[in-house]
Amino acid sequence: MIRGVVLGQVWATKRNPRLAGKRLLLVAEVVEDAAGRRRSGRVVVAADDLDARVGDAVVVAFGSGARNAEEACSRDVLSDAAIVQIIDSE
Amino acid sequence: MIRGVVLGQVWATKRNPRLAGKRLLLVAEVVEDAAGRRRSGRVVVAADDLDARVGDAVVVAFGSGARNAEEACSRDVLSDAAIVQIIDSE
Amino acid sequence: MIRGVVLGQVWATKRNPRLAGKRLLLVAEVVEDAAGRRRSGRVVVAADDLDARVGDAVVVAFGSGARNAEEACSRDVLSDAAIVQIIDSE
Amino acid sequence: MIRGVVLGQVWATKRNPRLAGKRLLLVAEVVEDAAGRRRSGRVVVAADDLDARVGDAVVVAFGSGARNAEEACSRDVLSDAAIVQIIDSE
Amino acid sequence: MIRGVVLGQVWATKRNPRLAGKRLLLVAEVVEDAAGRRRSGRVVVAADDLDARVGDAVVVAFGSGARNAEEACSRDVLSDAAIVQIIDSE
Repeated sequence: MIRGVVLGQVWATKRNPRLAGKRLLLVAEVVEDAAGRRRSGRVVVAADDLDARVGDAVVVAFGSGARNAEEACSRDVLSDAAIVQIIDSE
Repeated sequence: MIRGVVLGQVWATKRNPRLAGKRLLLVAEVVEDAAGRRRSGRVVVAADDLDARVGDAVVVAFGSGARNAEEACSRDVLSDAAIVQIIDSE
Repeated sequence: MIRGVVLGQVWATKRNPRLAGKRLLLVAEVVEDAAGRRRSGRVVVAADDLDARVGDAVVVAFGSGARNAEEACSRDVLSDAAIVQIIDSE
Repeated sequence: MIRGVVLGQVWATKRNPRLAGKRLLLVAEVVEDAAGRRRSGRVVVAADDLDARVGDAVVVAFGSGARNAEEACSRDVLSDAAIVQIIDSE
Repeated sequence: MIRGVVLGQVWATKRNPRLAGKRLLLVAEVVEDAAGRRRSGRVVVAADDLDARVGDAVVVAFGSGARNAEEACSRDVLSDAAIVQIIDSE
């Protein structure tokens, strides 16, 4: 999983039918080195069902972890990234 | 998933038979930092069945997510990346 | 798997119910080249059940490996990264 | 999938028995930005059964996609990367 | 799969019981561009059952490929990276 910050939402009229009804958010990865935290530049598109808002710090899961976020043991979920937690503090 | 922009199509006469009939597009990843958006340089080859055109902003899914874009619960799809959405706005 | 060092813990009230009770740690990846070791800047969020502490050098597994760290053959674990070892020496 | 160029072949006497008889090629990833195309430096080792030659532009699939390149629905293939197409033009 | 060079072994007393008896090695990724080969800085921790030694050039497989290196069709292996070949020449 990675830590990131929500940038906004993606809108589309043309999409795979398996994404119908999904809320997809743009999340900027946050990295951290000796100089402190910063955005890496990398942006992922993640499904959200926690109602995350722009500016929220979140945890994003990938792959089968992301599919399980939507449905237990689901094998037919299209999304490969999902917001699984909104961070309060660290 | 990542956000990208379509660069063009890949043509081949010699390919794995499991790719027969697939339309494969080159998609440039778009990243974003304090200085704004730019192409990262990274290019992925993704299956497309949404008829994306050169210049379109798209969302690309990977791994089993990409296979599910083609067929529900499919376990024998060769492709590991698929265009799942054409972006209207953000 | 990667080698990293524990930075701290992530706290959240709003999280996917499948993460309930999980201890999630921030782990900074450690890379190494001719100039020696350093943190790459990349930070992963990993499940921990070895009671790793801040500053510990750890090994993090990803994907289905991470799910198996929690439960054998588990297919419904949400986490995609787990601390699987605390390093004594190399 | 990624686009790359074949650098050469890897030879080994000591290998996992599941790799016996496999032809493994070194493939350099090709990236592309405003300044044009170039090799990223990243090199992957991919199974090949399309008889790709040094200098060929190829498409490499990863993960379960790569395993499916070898055998439909195969779950016991060791390789995690495979050349699935030799590019004629783009 | 990637090409790398063995840096050393990782020792631990506190580890996930599923790693018991495993030999884990640190492997530095080797990349290659117009200026020649060099270590990228990235280091992976990989299971080894080929008795690779420090300085050996090796091929590392990831994900389910790595699990299959240990046991055919195994679904409960924790490791996500394995040395599958010691390179003689290229």
